[in-house]
Amino acid sequence: MQIGMMGLGRMGANMVRRLIKDGHDCVVYDINPDAVAALVAEGATGATSLEDLVARLAKPACLWLMLPAAITGKVAKEVAAEMQPGDIIIDGGNSHYQDAVDLAAELSGRGISFVDVGTSGGVWGLERGYCLMIGGPEAAVRHLDPIFATLAPGADKGAVPSAEHGTAPFGYLHCGPSGAGHFVKMVHNGIEYGMMAAYAEGLNILKAANAGNRPRTTDAETSPLKNPEYYRFDIDLAAVTEVWRHGSVIGSWLLDLTAGVLKNDQTLAGYGGRVSDSGEGRWTLKAAIDTGVPAPVLSSALFDRFTSQGESAFADKLLSAMRFAFGGHVEKKAE
Amino acid sequence: MQIGMMGLGRMGANMVRRLIKDGHDCVVYDINPDAVAALVAEGATGATSLEDLVARLAKPACLWLMLPAAITGKVAKEVAAEMQPGDIIIDGGNSHYQDAVDLAAELSGRGISFVDVGTSGGVWGLERGYCLMIGGPEAAVRHLDPIFATLAPGADKGAVPSAEHGTAPFGYLHCGPSGAGHFVKMVHNGIEYGMMAAYAEGLNILKAANAGNRPRTTDAETSPLKNPEYYRFDIDLAAVTEVWRHGSVIGSWLLDLTAGVLKNDQTLAGYGGRVSDSGEGRWTLKAAIDTGVPAPVLSSALFDRFTSQGESAFADKLLSAMRFAFGGHVEKKAE
Amino acid sequence: MQIGMMGLGRMGANMVRRLIKDGHDCVVYDINPDAVAALVAEGATGATSLEDLVARLAKPACLWLMLPAAITGKVAKEVAAEMQPGDIIIDGGNSHYQDAVDLAAELSGRGISFVDVGTSGGVWGLERGYCLMIGGPEAAVRHLDPIFATLAPGADKGAVPSAEHGTAPFGYLHCGPSGAGHFVKMVHNGIEYGMMAAYAEGLNILKAANAGNRPRTTDAETSPLKNPEYYRFDIDLAAVTEVWRHGSVIGSWLLDLTAGVLKNDQTLAGYGGRVSDSGEGRWTLKAAIDTGVPAPVLSSALFDRFTSQGESAFADKLLSAMRFAFGGHVEKKAE
Amino acid sequence: MQIGMMGLGRMGANMVRRLIKDGHDCVVYDINPDAVAALVAEGATGATSLEDLVARLAKPACLWLMLPAAITGKVAKEVAAEMQPGDIIIDGGNSHYQDAVDLAAELSGRGISFVDVGTSGGVWGLERGYCLMIGGPEAAVRHLDPIFATLAPGADKGAVPSAEHGTAPFGYLHCGPSGAGHFVKMVHNGIEYGMMAAYAEGLNILKAANAGNRPRTTDAETSPLKNPEYYRFDIDLAAVTEVWRHGSVIGSWLLDLTAGVLKNDQTLAGYGGRVSDSGEGRWTLKAAIDTGVPAPVLSSALFDRFTSQGESAFADKLLSAMRFAFGGHVEKKAE
Repeated sequence: MQIGMMGLGRMGANMVRRLIKDGHDCVVYDINPDAVAALVAEGATGATSLEDLVARLAKPACLWLMLPAAITGKVAKEVAAEMQPGDIIIDGGNSHYQDAVDLAAELSGRGISFVDVGTSGGVWGLERGYCLMIGGPEAAVRHLDPIFATLAPGADKGAVPSAEHGTAPFGYLHCGPSGAGHFVKMVHNGIEYGMMAAYAEGLNILKAANAGNRPRTTDAETSPLKNPEYYRFDIDLAAVTEVWRHGSVIGSWLLDLTAGVLKNDQTLAGYGGRVSDSGEGRWTLKAAIDTGVPAPVLSSALFDRFTSQGESAFADKLLSAMRFAFGGHVEKKAE
Repeated sequence: MQIGMMGLGRMGANMVRRLIKDGHDCVVYDINPDAVAALVAEGATGATSLEDLVARLAKPACLWLMLPAAITGKVAKEVAAEMQPGDIIIDGGNSHYQDAVDLAAELSGRGISFVDVGTSGGVWGLERGYCLMIGGPEAAVRHLDPIFATLAPGADKGAVPSAEHGTAPFGYLHCGPSGAGHFVKMVHNGIEYGMMAAYAEGLNILKAANAGNRPRTTDAETSPLKNPEYYRFDIDLAAVTEVWRHGSVIGSWLLDLTAGVLKNDQTLAGYGGRVSDSGEGRWTLKAAIDTGVPAPVLSSALFDRFTSQGESAFADKLLSAMRFAFGGHVEKKAE
Repeated sequence: MQIGMMGLGRMGANMVRRLIKDGHDCVVYDINPDAVAALVAEGATGATSLEDLVARLAKPACLWLMLPAAITGKVAKEVAAEMQPGDIIIDGGNSHYQDAVDLAAELSGRGISFVDVGTSGGVWGLERGYCLMIGGPEAAVRHLDPIFATLAPGADKGAVPSAEHGTAPFGYLHCGPSGAGHFVKMVHNGIEYGMMAAYAEGLNILKAANAGNRPRTTDAETSPLKNPEYYRFDIDLAAVTEVWRHGSVIGSWLLDLTAGVLKNDQTLAGYGGRVSDSGEGRWTLKAAIDTGVPAPVLSSALFDRFTSQGESAFADKLLSAMRFAFGGHVEKKAE
Repeated sequence: MQIGMMGLGRMGANMVRRLIKDGHDCVVYDINPDAVAALVAEGATGATSLEDLVARLAKPACLWLMLPAAITGKVAKEVAAEMQPGDIIIDGGNSHYQDAVDLAAELSGRGISFVDVGTSGGVWGLERGYCLMIGGPEAAVRHLDPIFATLAPGADKGAVPSAEHGTAPFGYLHCGPSGAGHFVKMVHNGIEYGMMAAYAEGLNILKAANAGNRPRTTDAETSPLKNPEYYRFDIDLAAVTEVWRHGSVIGSWLLDLTAGVLKNDQTLAGYGGRVSDSGEGRWTLKAAIDTGVPAPVLSSALFDRFTSQGESAFADKLLSAMRFAFGGHVEKKAE
């Protein structure tokens, strides 16, 4: 079927490629004309403006936005201004689900359906398919089924269609009314933060397993290592992550990727350790707080990222200053 | 090759079955004669006592212990008393790696090799194979290679032998000297706690996504839900965990199992929520503390289990008592 | 000077008493006529309705609201409808500072000043004075200075007026524009949660110092206590909290109260351990998340309260279900 | 009475001064002769060696050790070799309580009493008195009562002798058998970590209250600040900590010191933010883990210190590497 795609970054462009490969008719637009040209060369129809894009879509027009969260709301309203009742806007970006709730309510008054699609799969989605978490009105979601079926992985690894859970085994799911897709994706990312941190902390402990072989300062400001004989292991992290991939309880796709990363360079010399967060981890925590649900693991994972961004600096200085104030402890220099 | 197995519980018995199926000669013993008889019926050789077990093993005797951590050390010493220089004791249980370090040092003085094997795979290992993390002297580990190769999953899902990481792609790895196997397994379990908690917290938030539809007390002791309109989703957790299995970043074997669990019963009516911990999560945290490595996610996961066991009760009462003392706040009754 | 007070609960009534005692003229109103009558008997002027209350105030009318957060905004607007330009509304409750920002902006258009006053001191404020954190327009705050000076503790324990920090040594402070008072009070409460939890966790560990004397199950689902000889202390918590009050680094007013609580009953038999939270801890965390500031201690303290309210139940059941799924671990019953 | 003191660092020297001032006879020794000379000039008797020190003590000899934890055990044994049955060794340092348990058991076989005294008060103890948490045999502790009574603050701020809690109101307490003093001090320091972190996190949030006034990058790797209008406060942290000292729920001695610190320099320019930990926070967590008591706040406080020491670096790099691996996210540079 025909679908418009606006926003041809890493995610948007690859989704178009996957759609074209499966025979869909894609009309594409991006503020960067080179991105449009590249996909036209691969079989898409190019548009020269937002208005041109909408005009090229048959009725009901179905337009997928794959944009940074910060501008999605604004663009969606511009798009809607060009549309007619019965048309459908899809937001596949990392928008806040509350914006989706509000926007859907606003557009439904004009007869336009707003469908929010949480999209997971990263740069591997072109090949593996994207996991799609969908919110929106029943009719619009049903109309878009061929698109979702192509983007999703399909019946991989023995999955079978399910009477109970519908399309879930194919990798896409209508989760509920507008906002439900982004809500489920938000929590998905919150879990992702927690899993990533679990691996990172564990591997950091394994890396320290040779602490007993390292020289240790012996002043009053340094806690002694009582039994160095128990910390004399030089663990090969690349081999360990590889072996965990086979038969262990903690096997996962993230572990597969981590093993690949460590095979290339166990020192991770190319990284500085400043870990970004792009919003969904924050929103997950806010939802937990609003609903009174404890989430200590997910919040620890988020706050560690803030700390990696340098945001604990003042708190740490305060702690050193307090220690000096009550105990005369002079702060040690960084090594 | 021939191997003795002592301890025929869920793990030990299934490992014997996997070994027999691959042509190994297994001599088995357990204090429960029925457990011995069951495996004899499947092709194992039965022993009637620890001494009988050792006596039936050809030299060098290789005896695998699959026992509760609390008694492994004691039994290993009894076994060693029956052994000769060149013999090998393997501990495949969840022992503390420091006990393995100590025991190996003690036994090596008598020419007996002690090999510690962290074993992951649970009740699925018989079918999927076990992930083996091995510590011990090079020669003994090499001698046991046929056993490890059978127990491990082997070259699954496209794994290939690796010049760099040896047998890791087959699901077993010699991690270092005695203790290294249990150390790696210990951290493995620490990570497992963190991953499990990440899923559990996230799904708990999804379950609360309909908080705006529930009635809410409006007294000074209850924080108001400011925007109930954003919490009106009834999420099908079984469908969501199923869809995440296909193409998402958080796919894993634990997620596969979780989706299966939720398909049977989304209310989890068969569980009370008292989550046991069997030691390795605790030891992981102690290793982190000894080596000065931050592990906030893994510790949150561990402490949540303690709380589920009722161990925060006194702390919670103290908080209520303090609130009454400074603010006259009367504790609300549990609902 | 003259001041109106609406909301004569525990806090509001005591504040009126402290004001009357210092010679101020208080006009009071509450939906409960008995509360009004009680204070009239102590020297206040009673009002029979919100309108009557405003009518009895000389210009510029100064009306202090001491109401539950959930209704403050609504009542403030009703009050404002009765007021004239130049009048002042003070909100001393636990409102969200963002509501104060919004309300102040709305009312300033009509010439009415909105002053938000975070008020700490609990049931002890009548005697000790209240710590006041104030936000709002300079002129209105200055006009109310006599009221603040009476409510605050004044120059206690050697405090002296400060050229630099103004009235802070007297226990009240103009923190910034509208909303700043509630913002500072919000963070104050966040810190309070963290401090309370620090004491509660520490005392809970002290209470467990005799774990080595208690019988311990020895099954595979229970982590063994390796060195019971190190856990044979029966600590007198009432005596310990008392001794800490004298010369230790952790002395505080909360500790004073805690020592008092434990002197009465070390078992805290009157409490069930369901710890309420009334909003400001949640808002503190949201502010931390919005601004990207790590707050792992404050969030742990908040989430422990959620857990004490039963909100981890589903997550815990999930963990038990996962353990059964991968390892066949049968959940232990609560003791 | 007469007492020997070995170890004349900041703590030991000031304790001698407080004892001399109250009329006690102090025999002092330190490997640094200048430290001995300084106290001799103030009225102490100097010793030239450990042996000389013991020889100068009347029977029963009472010798207080105020040494780094790393050498206390070794020195205690050397001292004991010079002593007779009936003599008393006191350890006032930050030793691990388990060492005290072991050492006391060893020395009691030779008739020497070992008394462990957790000592809080820092550099202010000379003036304010030290809070003493005491473990050891009843008779030895009773014998030392005059020393404890002098070192402790005494009946400050209205404290009265207590039939129930003995000397606790005077600032010293016999907590139980050998080890109990260091155990209580250990948990005291664990609580201290938690309280310090609560203040530091809260003040860090207050400092960020003007985030809405700062420019913000708007790329896909940066979470947007949705409502900058709510983050436009420039909070005077010195004034706020000062006002909290007067009548608020979070008043404490640590807050008094913090207010003093911030008055001098709100930017804390003299500190780098590397926060040391000297062992007792770690031991507190290990005790919590051994006894199965949840301590998420205390552990977060400890782990934040590890992170401030640079120990999360590898974990953070792993997270950035994973993000690149699954999503092509390029790590942002530190600002």
